Amino acid sequence: MTKDPLVVFTPSGKRGRFPVGTPVLTAARQLGVDLDSVCGGRGICSKCQITPAYGDFPKHGVHVAQDALSDWNKVEERYDQKRGLKPGRRLGCQATVQRDVVIDVPAESQVHRQVVRKAATARVIEMDPATRIFYVEVEEPDMHEPTGDLERLARALKAQWDIPGITADVSLLGQLQPILRKGDWKITVALNKSAAEATPHLIAAWPGLHEGGIYGLAIDLGSTTIAAHLTNLDTGEVVASSGIMNPQIRFGEDLMSRVSYSMMNPGGDVEMTRAVREAIDTLAVEIAKEAGIAPSLILETVFVCNPVMHHLLLGIDPVELGQAPFALATSNSLTLTARDLDLTSLPASAQVYILPCIAGHVGADAAAVALSEEPGKSEDLVLVVDVGTNAEILLGDKTRVLACSSPTGPAFEGAQISSGQRAAPGAIEAIRIDPETKEPRFRVIGCDKWSNEEGFWEETAATGITGICGSGIIEAVAELRTAGLLDPSGLIGGPAQTGTDRCVAEGRTHSYLIHDATAEGGPRITVTQGDIRAIQLAKSALYAGARLLMDTRGVDKVDRVVLAGAFGAHISPQHAMVLGMIPDVPLDKVTSAGNAAGTGARIALCNLAARREIERVVREITKVETAIEPKFQEHFVNANAIPHATDAFPELNKIVTLPQVSFNSGGEDGGGRRRRRRG
Amino acid sequence: MTKDPLVVFTPSGKRGRFPVGTPVLTAARQLGVDLDSVCGGRGICSKCQITPAYGDFPKHGVHVAQDALSDWNKVEERYDQKRGLKPGRRLGCQATVQRDVVIDVPAESQVHRQVVRKAATARVIEMDPATRIFYVEVEEPDMHEPTGDLERLARALKAQWDIPGITADVSLLGQLQPILRKGDWKITVALNKSAAEATPHLIAAWPGLHEGGIYGLAIDLGSTTIAAHLTNLDTGEVVASSGIMNPQIRFGEDLMSRVSYSMMNPGGDVEMTRAVREAIDTLAVEIAKEAGIAPSLILETVFVCNPVMHHLLLGIDPVELGQAPFALATSNSLTLTARDLDLTSLPASAQVYILPCIAGHVGADAAAVALSEEPGKSEDLVLVVDVGTNAEILLGDKTRVLACSSPTGPAFEGAQISSGQRAAPGAIEAIRIDPETKEPRFRVIGCDKWSNEEGFWEETAATGITGICGSGIIEAVAELRTAGLLDPSGLIGGPAQTGTDRCVAEGRTHSYLIHDATAEGGPRITVTQGDIRAIQLAKSALYAGARLLMDTRGVDKVDRVVLAGAFGAHISPQHAMVLGMIPDVPLDKVTSAGNAAGTGARIALCNLAARREIERVVREITKVETAIEPKFQEHFVNANAIPHATDAFPELNKIVTLPQVSFNSGGEDGGGRRRRRRG
Repeated sequence: MTKDPLVVFTPSGKRGRFPVGTPVLTAARQLGVDLDSVCGGRGICSKCQITPAYGDFPKHGVHVAQDALSDWNKVEERYDQKRGLKPGRRLGCQATVQRDVVIDVPAESQVHRQVVRKAATARVIEMDPATRIFYVEVEEPDMHEPTGDLERLARALKAQWDIPGITADVSLLGQLQPILRKGDWKITVALNKSAAEATPHLIAAWPGLHEGGIYGLAIDLGSTTIAAHLTNLDTGEVVASSGIMNPQIRFGEDLMSRVSYSMMNPGGDVEMTRAVREAIDTLAVEIAKEAGIAPSLILETVFVCNPVMHHLLLGIDPVELGQAPFALATSNSLTLTARDLDLTSLPASAQVYILPCIAGHVGADAAAVALSEEPGKSEDLVLVVDVGTNAEILLGDKTRVLACSSPTGPAFEGAQISSGQRAAPGAIEAIRIDPETKEPRFRVIGCDKWSNEEGFWEETAATGITGICGSGIIEAVAELRTAGLLDPSGLIGGPAQTGTDRCVAEGRTHSYLIHDATAEGGPRITVTQGDIRAIQLAKSALYAGARLLMDTRGVDKVDRVVLAGAFGAHISPQHAMVLGMIPDVPLDKVTSAGNAAGTGARIALCNLAARREIERVVREITKVETAIEPKFQEHFVNANAIPHATDAFPELNKIVTLPQVSFNSGGEDGGGRRRRRRG
Repeated sequence: MTKDPLVVFTPSGKRGRFPVGTPVLTAARQLGVDLDSVCGGRGICSKCQITPAYGDFPKHGVHVAQDALSDWNKVEERYDQKRGLKPGRRLGCQATVQRDVVIDVPAESQVHRQVVRKAATARVIEMDPATRIFYVEVEEPDMHEPTGDLERLARALKAQWDIPGITADVSLLGQLQPILRKGDWKITVALNKSAAEATPHLIAAWPGLHEGGIYGLAIDLGSTTIAAHLTNLDTGEVVASSGIMNPQIRFGEDLMSRVSYSMMNPGGDVEMTRAVREAIDTLAVEIAKEAGIAPSLILETVFVCNPVMHHLLLGIDPVELGQAPFALATSNSLTLTARDLDLTSLPASAQVYILPCIAGHVGADAAAVALSEEPGKSEDLVLVVDVGTNAEILLGDKTRVLACSSPTGPAFEGAQISSGQRAAPGAIEAIRIDPETKEPRFRVIGCDKWSNEEGFWEETAATGITGICGSGIIEAVAELRTAGLLDPSGLIGGPAQTGTDRCVAEGRTHSYLIHDATAEGGPRITVTQGDIRAIQLAKSALYAGARLLMDTRGVDKVDRVVLAGAFGAHISPQHAMVLGMIPDVPLDKVTSAGNAAGTGARIALCNLAARREIERVVREITKVETAIEPKFQEHFVNANAIPHATDAFPELNKIVTLPQVSFNSGGEDGGGRRRRRRG
């Protein structure tokens, strides 16, 4: 008696013997091999593509003959003519096993495929989406045995996909009948599971086989910017990224002024909620247009945001977040629908997942950073800093993770800086000051050249030099210090002390002139004493938050630092350390995670298990409240000075040997001026 | 060693020994005695009132001394002064066990108390509401251990009520914080369970102890009328009943014309959905006002309705219900929220339960009748007829239940009758015709006297005699027949044949004049040949439906008949049988169930288990589709004649010995006239 042919699947290594004529898809299912299929083996969806391997496979103990699988059949022929099959590929539901065979399941045919993130770190997202589509053929209604169309659909899903039961979103009830009839009782349905064990919930349907894909939005709802990644829920691919200003800015630049607005204006919270929801609707429409898809295909949305934005999104007055004990209305994650949030550009049934908040000042955005950067899985002690209007700070390793937030204010983002502007073409994003000549050279967004390189002025003629953005102002302050133009207390020296006319008097203090285009009707870009003070406040807050976590953890140094935040990617680590934004670590131990909160949102969008994971992680994080820790104030005051480059940073020392300058004898700072006036 | 005191609860008979000092409420809980409490034993809600019994109880083997319970305490004292305790009553959470005692739990202190229905039959509704309220005291937020207010509420519910977890409606998220603070961290929450095993869902909250009650609406959504019972979800008491016209009437009088409207007018279904939802909102506000409660206290709504109304309520185009195979979009029961249905007068979180539909023509209203009348529990074979624009007909006993619907049209409700009107003051609701003199006497709604009794005309002067309602027209036709003024085919005789001037010629047929007030500018009320034909069509449809079920069941008689429907209560059984509306049964076997669909809705509103019960019953009902059964047409045609009273109805024979009259020789019916015109 001959044995049934052996079938070995790679990369899983799963193997088993199957009778001649068994479709590869059937073999894969029986072995639990992760091979996708939307149409259930009808040869129309092409999701189950596989690649048979031929020849000797000593590792598997198999020789695969050319006729190991059945011949190319009509279904495959038709599919290839219509859509094209890659060379060597077969449809797993059509090709049947004839002899021993080794079958490779390419990544794109796996449901739980892994998607490489575009960000700096090479971590991958495993696809385990909450929403999946299924093609089914439904029995026609029978007058003699009356059942609803929905009940017959459920019966078909049970028979054809072994899905034991479904519920339907109320918005689908009116769509189901025309869709079933249009598709001649063939239908593709999108079923969502809010949890692995939940009953699948019908949230979308299309006549026949739906080939337009389904999409999700990962939204990082910031105080200033709302950024979204439109993601294909099947492939995990980001098909478009877009952002718009948070229109709540008109109610207050920072979070606390929005809380105040709500306190002072009855119904102010309702106004702000309406504004942000409308903006999200606009963004969804724009990003769908950019990707060339219908907004109706956006079936899931994940939000990450700070607690105030979280409450305002949900229609909760954030007033309690403005005063001790900073009580959140709810801290747990939430699973809602677009209908619940009045997001009218999305299907009413679209699912919304909001990550959990960590504490009254540490929001779902920080949770998303924790999901993306996984400090709780780190072998060494890592400090993760998400720089924004509020800085979220995480410190931890696999033994324990701590979190806090620190009110850095908008200075790091170029706001409340005299020549500050948002990161946009024309903004100075990098600057160097020659320690000898004290002359600046700079680079602006939209041009790769430095200002002292040939062609710079021609290439920037269109945008002009318009201002200085967040990363630019950080570099400017650090460079002023290393060039000896700024003393450790943060005072800009006058021309007499510094020997350069770039340091110009403005009132009783001095400013450093970077660029003057007033002759051509352009701006005059300076760093003023006020700018230095704003940056000092911001960096002190950030540093103090990090120090507080280190104190709580009982350490005085960290092994590495991750700079996160849309803006974190653009900060120069050495300048950040010169400034004293972050604790000293070797420069190669500072990495940028890009928009880690946005990445966390994408992970939660693509992976249901990751939602449960971050909910667990957040429960275990040690929360530290900066507002009530006396040590925070102490650290804050102590962090005010701007240290200088030391031997820890040989790269910086290459640029300049730092002189120990102090201008206190001659100059006056803002504080001194105020005191004098009072006197 | 002395034994602990024995505590015996009545009426349950549960008993156990408890240490001296055990509160009665604690003892009840440990024994599983159904003793209510909202405040959890804090002596403020008074729900746990009990009555200790004193003296000898040989049945229980107990002698109860006067000091069997602890003395009246301060909490009881204060409660009695503030609200008053009935004599003999104690608060179960305050009174403690001192010696052997027999304790009676009065009905109003039981959660699962039974409420006697007001309807004719004496069945009771057991209270097992899906929504219950709980008083809890919540920990204040602590900055050092940040948790959301909702999470702390959940923790309190776990600790104080052993409720393992809750979810919260999105509309509650914004309300929770101000309510908790207003109530100084004491709060009453309403938790809803859509099924016995479901996680409780927070749907309402009040500061401190809520004493305003919670309410539910049982809505019978008819084609013509929307009727609602506002029910206290704690006591089961109906606190107000109200009804309004279904505004969809402007799109079509009957169901099929509304389906046609939707077919002919794109968006017509949306218009009709909006209209009916607005009407429900209006009704909710009105009924709450009538009961003197805030609409925000209405936390549940149960709907019963025919399939077309069901679909239009849900926003489903009913077009498929207008053509074979009459496929429902969904037939299962639905649990939704007021938000899902845009019912803005109710809290967004208010729960909506819609009973299952039985078939494309047999709706949730028929399911509600089955829930109320329980034909499936009947020992004898019962025919339940719910008379309306469509008649729902159930036939069954404990072995099997069959159901169909029959398109009776609106004639039974007084519509499309020449002098017809809705049941309202001034409408003739009962009529007798003297078999000798052929003179009528009648009674109108709003006056107890017959028209030949003294004082009738004075008492009806205000309303006048305005028309004839459904029950009136049925009696009129039957009386015309028994008075010998109508032949078996339904033709009204002329004055020559009948010997009375009341039979007046109108065109080629005759009408019977009931009342002529034209001299005083009032109406002239007649029964025309057209009216007779309309009633014949309606009653034939009804009878044919019943016969079809009897055929399917294989019987040619039933044991009893239940007339249901708002209008069923007013039909005179003997007249209905003379007319041939229902199969012949002894008169005492015909009962009225009043608005059985409305009662079914109330049962589903007050009892969660009843929802599962009717869902099971509906699955087991044998559905018969009248539209495709050739026998239906046959029965319909055969039922056209109007039989006469026989020995089966001695009561009728007392009124008149029926002559066998026929006017076919001389008269002409409408059908004949039409044929002649064509010829």
